[in-house]
Amino acid sequence: MRRLTLIALPFAFLAPTRARPQVATDAHRAAAERLIDAALRDSAAHRRVSELTDRFGHRFTGSESLERALDWIMGEMRRDGLENVRAEPVMVTHWVRGAESLDLVRPRPLTLPMLGLGRSVGTPAAGISAPVLVVRDFAELRARAAEVRGKIVLYDHPFDTTVHPFTGYGRAVQYRATGADSASALGAVAVLVRSVTPRSFRTPHTGGMSYADSARRIPRIPAAAITVEDAEMLHRMQDRGEPITVTLKMGARTLPDARSRNVIAELRGSERPDEVIVMGGHIDSWDVGQGAMDDAGGSVAAWEALRLIKQLGVRPRRTIRVVLWTAEEIGLSGANAYRDAHRAEIDNHVLAMESDNGVFRPYGLSYAGADAGFGPMRQIASMLRRIGADSVQAGGPQADVGPLFALGVPTVSPNVDASRYFWYHHTDADTADKIDPLDMARCVALMAVVANTVANMDGAFPRAR
Amino acid sequence: MRRLTLIALPFAFLAPTRARPQVATDAHRAAAERLIDAALRDSAAHRRVSELTDRFGHRFTGSESLERALDWIMGEMRRDGLENVRAEPVMVTHWVRGAESLDLVRPRPLTLPMLGLGRSVGTPAAGISAPVLVVRDFAELRARAAEVRGKIVLYDHPFDTTVHPFTGYGRAVQYRATGADSASALGAVAVLVRSVTPRSFRTPHTGGMSYADSARRIPRIPAAAITVEDAEMLHRMQDRGEPITVTLKMGARTLPDARSRNVIAELRGSERPDEVIVMGGHIDSWDVGQGAMDDAGGSVAAWEALRLIKQLGVRPRRTIRVVLWTAEEIGLSGANAYRDAHRAEIDNHVLAMESDNGVFRPYGLSYAGADAGFGPMRQIASMLRRIGADSVQAGGPQADVGPLFALGVPTVSPNVDASRYFWYHHTDADTADKIDPLDMARCVALMAVVANTVANMDGAFPRAR
Repeated sequence: MRRLTLIALPFAFLAPTRARPQVATDAHRAAAERLIDAALRDSAAHRRVSELTDRFGHRFTGSESLERALDWIMGEMRRDGLENVRAEPVMVTHWVRGAESLDLVRPRPLTLPMLGLGRSVGTPAAGISAPVLVVRDFAELRARAAEVRGKIVLYDHPFDTTVHPFTGYGRAVQYRATGADSASALGAVAVLVRSVTPRSFRTPHTGGMSYADSARRIPRIPAAAITVEDAEMLHRMQDRGEPITVTLKMGARTLPDARSRNVIAELRGSERPDEVIVMGGHIDSWDVGQGAMDDAGGSVAAWEALRLIKQLGVRPRRTIRVVLWTAEEIGLSGANAYRDAHRAEIDNHVLAMESDNGVFRPYGLSYAGADAGFGPMRQIASMLRRIGADSVQAGGPQADVGPLFALGVPTVSPNVDASRYFWYHHTDADTADKIDPLDMARCVALMAVVANTVANMDGAFPRAR
Repeated sequence: MRRLTLIALPFAFLAPTRARPQVATDAHRAAAERLIDAALRDSAAHRRVSELTDRFGHRFTGSESLERALDWIMGEMRRDGLENVRAEPVMVTHWVRGAESLDLVRPRPLTLPMLGLGRSVGTPAAGISAPVLVVRDFAELRARAAEVRGKIVLYDHPFDTTVHPFTGYGRAVQYRATGADSASALGAVAVLVRSVTPRSFRTPHTGGMSYADSARRIPRIPAAAITVEDAEMLHRMQDRGEPITVTLKMGARTLPDARSRNVIAELRGSERPDEVIVMGGHIDSWDVGQGAMDDAGGSVAAWEALRLIKQLGVRPRRTIRVVLWTAEEIGLSGANAYRDAHRAEIDNHVLAMESDNGVFRPYGLSYAGADAGFGPMRQIASMLRRIGADSVQAGGPQADVGPLFALGVPTVSPNVDASRYFWYHHTDADTADKIDPLDMARCVALMAVVANTVANMDGAFPRAR
């Protein structure tokens, strides 16, 4: 993990004197200790994320299982005694995978595990049978541009394991995200992408893609992920001079937008109920596995954090609101809908916190906002020293709080040991067993302490800008 | 890894004076250096195992792909200039998987990845639909004996990761190997077994099972492996009191025995051609993945070792014979057929070496034989210090050399870092990319040095008994 070692400067040095927030007082520390005690007491959070994911499985945007999971969650939240439990409507992209398959025809018959990419067009019913051209990257695609026409291009771009996992992901994911247009512009008839992961058990990883050319001068061609193992095998075959042909069949299509919901629960503030601390995760997932790490874990961690704050028995001074955003994976329409529905109160959003990097062991906070906020954020983090999560580093907002950040709301997220995150990311293997109960309890403690402290502090937390 | 630190006693202390083998002489050391140089020079072994596995895929006993792979191998061996390349006939068990599936019916519909177990009977065409009883182990099965009748028993026995991988495997594999009879005796209608692995990406692991009761007083019931993830999910469902029902369909059946072959290649000895050093691996695999680690890697390592010895240009004094045994995974009939076909010359088998724990980084030799052999074996191992493989420990014979060991032939195998072996074992993910080219080259070097040294030593290597 890339960790920044930051010197904990005295808070007063950085915070503006005008609205000096009072954090890490004795009262805040006492509450934090009680929240951490409660979070670490048992595996309640892990039991809840297991029950959610076992009961409903994955929760894909536009699916019935997502909507039934939301109904169940709201029922449970009401049983927990949370306040103002409600759903806010969101229109969402409704892409469906349909039946799909990939068969190696030459040099030998073999069915290859695959997953179509989200938003991809499908193939004709008979599929697309074509020779394969394997390239390592866009540079090799350009160098071999004359060979592309009529081919299925395979991007065999390895995940760089020598850098931070999110850096490695960022570099490799571009082939998944935009590789179809690049190949289509040169005459390719479909693209295959090596799954974006540092480790594979012959497991395909899905994910989003898009067609940039709204004028459709570049034909929209189907795009699918194959396994690391098969990408390397096809590359070896090409290197040995063996002609490769595959048949790709994809029933993927985009239906008219569907209805979904953001789910909200609160503890209303006792003194400044209009000032809101938002925390949450995205409750939708890809249509494989259980979406346990991505992002049932973050969603349940925020929910459990609110439940523990309620259990303290001391109503926070400001309102703490859990938001479970829908449709993060495909369209981000839940996050945008939340911003639009709450535009009038955005200026009263004190802080927005999302957990969407997995509920792995947390080691601190990733903060996006004005420099003046680092001081109070470090003071808050100091209360997390007991669980080893007292570092603070600068980092961009997570996806669903991005629209709030753009309007000036400072954001924070748990910084976790994500070294295993991409092993299971967007696969059938993203299941509840991958979540360590103690690590998740630490994430719950972190979110509870941050939200409760900011909700009770004197003074104002500085705006992001 | 469990590593024994052994003190390298002076060879003369242990070896019987009657037939003192002269090993690790300057000439032996010079040849060993050249063999190690040649093995580490490039990735030839990895290229060969990749081509074999890419070209033919898995090589299941009774399959056409196995026989075509054997034909190709013999052609390549002849092109390598190896001698007496030939096939010896073996009659083999011919179990076929057929179509198979497992569907969770209650508490929610979900198709579960599964693999039937080798030798299992199938189900009726409509499948077996029954409630599931999850148990942790045989003790819990006995404790809940009254609940078993009419159920599908799931053994959710975790792989103990706190012990040596082979110890963990040995403890967990008993549920796969014999769990069907134990459950059937109590009235179960089928069994499911948690895949035997310390790590899962929702990947089922197949493997062998057997029915012990030849009188068939205990009904033979179907047996299949499911993933770690789903075993744990079903266990959680049971713990929450949710009734579980599944439908298991398996088209598995055992056909009449089929013909296969052991493949043999040699370098004939210059002085004592009747004295034979055997080395090899098993060339068959399960019918999933590519059987790369298990055991194309060991097979090709032995073959490459012989090719490098030939390249030395100095004919060994004794005969070195590579044997690629067929049908190890189901029946061990290749190993037994080799013993039977060569019974008259077993007393002239000086040493038998098999690699079947994966061609991971080797750290020494595992030796099974008379105590008097430890001295010369340590002398041989001392020539492997450069590749970090100079330890010698006692260990039982590997599967295919077991019948030879039983007749007095000492055996040796590479001791490798098998910490990842069971991740991929008997799965779709056992593919060539899992083999590190340098680690495999070290295994080739080890096998070449051991075989060549024993083939050229003065005196006799002590018999196993």
